[in-house]
Amino acid sequence: MQTDKFGFGTQIRKSPFFDATIRWGATEFSVYNHMYIPRDFGSTEQNFWNLINDAILCDVAVERQVEITGPDAATFMQMLTPRDLSKLSVVQCKYILVINADGGILNDPVLLRLAENHFWMSLADSDILLWAQGVAVNSGLDVKICEPDVSPLQLQGPKSGEIMTALFGERIMELRYYWLIEIELDGIPLVVSRTGWSSELGYEIYLRDGSLGDTLWEKIMAAGEPFGLKPGHTSSIRRIEGGMLSYHADADINTNPYELGLDRLVNLDIEAEFIGKAALSHIRDNGVNRKQVGLFIEGEPLSGPNTTFWPLIQRGKVVGKVTSAIYSPRLKQNIALAMVSTGCAKLGTKLEVSMSSKSVQATIVPKPFYDPKKKIASI
Amino acid sequence: MQTDKFGFGTQIRKSPFFDATIRWGATEFSVYNHMYIPRDFGSTEQNFWNLINDAILCDVAVERQVEITGPDAATFMQMLTPRDLSKLSVVQCKYILVINADGGILNDPVLLRLAENHFWMSLADSDILLWAQGVAVNSGLDVKICEPDVSPLQLQGPKSGEIMTALFGERIMELRYYWLIEIELDGIPLVVSRTGWSSELGYEIYLRDGSLGDTLWEKIMAAGEPFGLKPGHTSSIRRIEGGMLSYHADADINTNPYELGLDRLVNLDIEAEFIGKAALSHIRDNGVNRKQVGLFIEGEPLSGPNTTFWPLIQRGKVVGKVTSAIYSPRLKQNIALAMVSTGCAKLGTKLEVSMSSKSVQATIVPKPFYDPKKKIASI
Repeated sequence: MQTDKFGFGTQIRKSPFFDATIRWGATEFSVYNHMYIPRDFGSTEQNFWNLINDAILCDVAVERQVEITGPDAATFMQMLTPRDLSKLSVVQCKYILVINADGGILNDPVLLRLAENHFWMSLADSDILLWAQGVAVNSGLDVKICEPDVSPLQLQGPKSGEIMTALFGERIMELRYYWLIEIELDGIPLVVSRTGWSSELGYEIYLRDGSLGDTLWEKIMAAGEPFGLKPGHTSSIRRIEGGMLSYHADADINTNPYELGLDRLVNLDIEAEFIGKAALSHIRDNGVNRKQVGLFIEGEPLSGPNTTFWPLIQRGKVVGKVTSAIYSPRLKQNIALAMVSTGCAKLGTKLEVSMSSKSVQATIVPKPFYDPKKKIASI
Repeated sequence: MQTDKFGFGTQIRKSPFFDATIRWGATEFSVYNHMYIPRDFGSTEQNFWNLINDAILCDVAVERQVEITGPDAATFMQMLTPRDLSKLSVVQCKYILVINADGGILNDPVLLRLAENHFWMSLADSDILLWAQGVAVNSGLDVKICEPDVSPLQLQGPKSGEIMTALFGERIMELRYYWLIEIELDGIPLVVSRTGWSSELGYEIYLRDGSLGDTLWEKIMAAGEPFGLKPGHTSSIRRIEGGMLSYHADADINTNPYELGLDRLVNLDIEAEFIGKAALSHIRDNGVNRKQVGLFIEGEPLSGPNTTFWPLIQRGKVVGKVTSAIYSPRLKQNIALAMVSTGCAKLGTKLEVSMSSKSVQATIVPKPFYDPKKKIASI
């Protein structure tokens, strides 16, 4: 049985869509939030073309939700992020950073507000459930924090709107970018948001009953078939083209928002207290020593993503590291995100990339590498 | 390059011993604490025999350390666990549970006390760094919490003592079970403790400089060669024989210590406050609805560990689940850890195991399944 290949027995969780993804051709899995995530359906390049030309359905149940409810939920939620939540409406979403007391990034979830005092954080790969429960211990606030039975799928790509219409009717077209709706599909309880991790038109479909994973997957694939929907996985090519972060690769607990140019996600002038406010003020006032940049890397097309952080060299000195690199078949170009010393971060700067077996030249360029609609800045 | 097979680029970390394990024949990896861990060097059964007959060296850098220092470190550390730490000496270790406010288990680390106010928790698979930092936010205690540059190896098996003597000289034989020593090997800074995850004689060797991983690995393998040392990985067979927990499989945030029979790790009568004290008192006073038990499972030898939680059935009703099952080639028996309703937890009870393709009989038996020295109870 193919599933025996993957790891530790029951120590790593299976998504409610696991059996479906195996049936639909998943050949390789990774692990994210203690759960298997499909990473290959035969060709990562074909998956990219499927995404940008038609649509793909991705099992992202690994985006575990942290649910915060209780009378003080809104106050508590604001404690967890430097982004101003005072204007976050019910049924609206925001891309936020979760920050520790030192200003380090713990996660970059999508925040969903289901009700006045009902929030979900749809997580990148770290146990924010433990962080939030830990913060709550001595907070004096009345909140309940748990991981609910919620498992998202991503339906992404230019045809995703038509497929959603086929599934939910015309009214789903009224759903605006970074808003959500509570909805059912033939009795299957869902939340749907117009969000994703692809920089393409797309939706996330949050299954609220893990026992119905197989049914939901098959319904969506059946509705999508006439539109060319393919089973897929989050595309490293597309997300790097879009300059989107992968937590642990491009950001971690030792990275702060200013280094990443994410100033827009930090609102230091709000009255509310949030964790990391003093540290972030200090960093803003004193500046940062390094900055995230985009790179074009010369030479042959990379055969896959970098699996180590490649040092960046200038005049014989290490001045930074490549965090995520890949070949974009659309741009016909090796593209990368990198963290470099502020003094070397100017556009046009030439740096040397030290790979294990060779060195190649790179040039700092604007990012995102491909973003016709400039959607990122608007969420 | 073989390493390209594994996942997400830089999103999952590589251990300082990663290249060494590849060189020494690691063929399969899993992911634990956001880091690759070798899970196969060709035969998991041979790995088991190597462990119990001779010795194996295992890359367990995934056991990330949470370091707690600062003037209030000891007070803070006691807040994090229900085990009485008042008699924990400097250079002593203890197996502890980290518990949330509801009495749920967040981790089961080995705690190392390096100095009066200097602790490491050597973690199972969850982000206790975030939990501890979260708890600290409003604690009013002066502590510093970080993940230091520390990467453990496990040297386990009956020959491990001789190999340690070859490496460190006769004085290492004075190191008692669950004690530690700060030590160097040819200038490589280390901590060594007499601990492990095998129920065999064994040591953990904590490398304190990640750049020296390759050097350390080769030195140990060279010293061990005359004693039959083999590269290996933590053995699911041996740990299940020993009744040792695997976090997420046998315990999780919804499991409490009393369900696991770990009452000895909970000291409700100490004066110090710790998180979960009220919840654990309530559970102790009211009893639990389910208990962990050992099982013999009939039928053909299992071809590998269970990859789903198999339901346990009694008279047509689900009364529990198998959490970890495996075939022990030493006992010539399928053995398992399971969680069952208290009413069905008596020794000798017959239950039906519902696997995906068939049902087989099982009997509740004492655990550990193999523990000639009864070491577990003494730590």
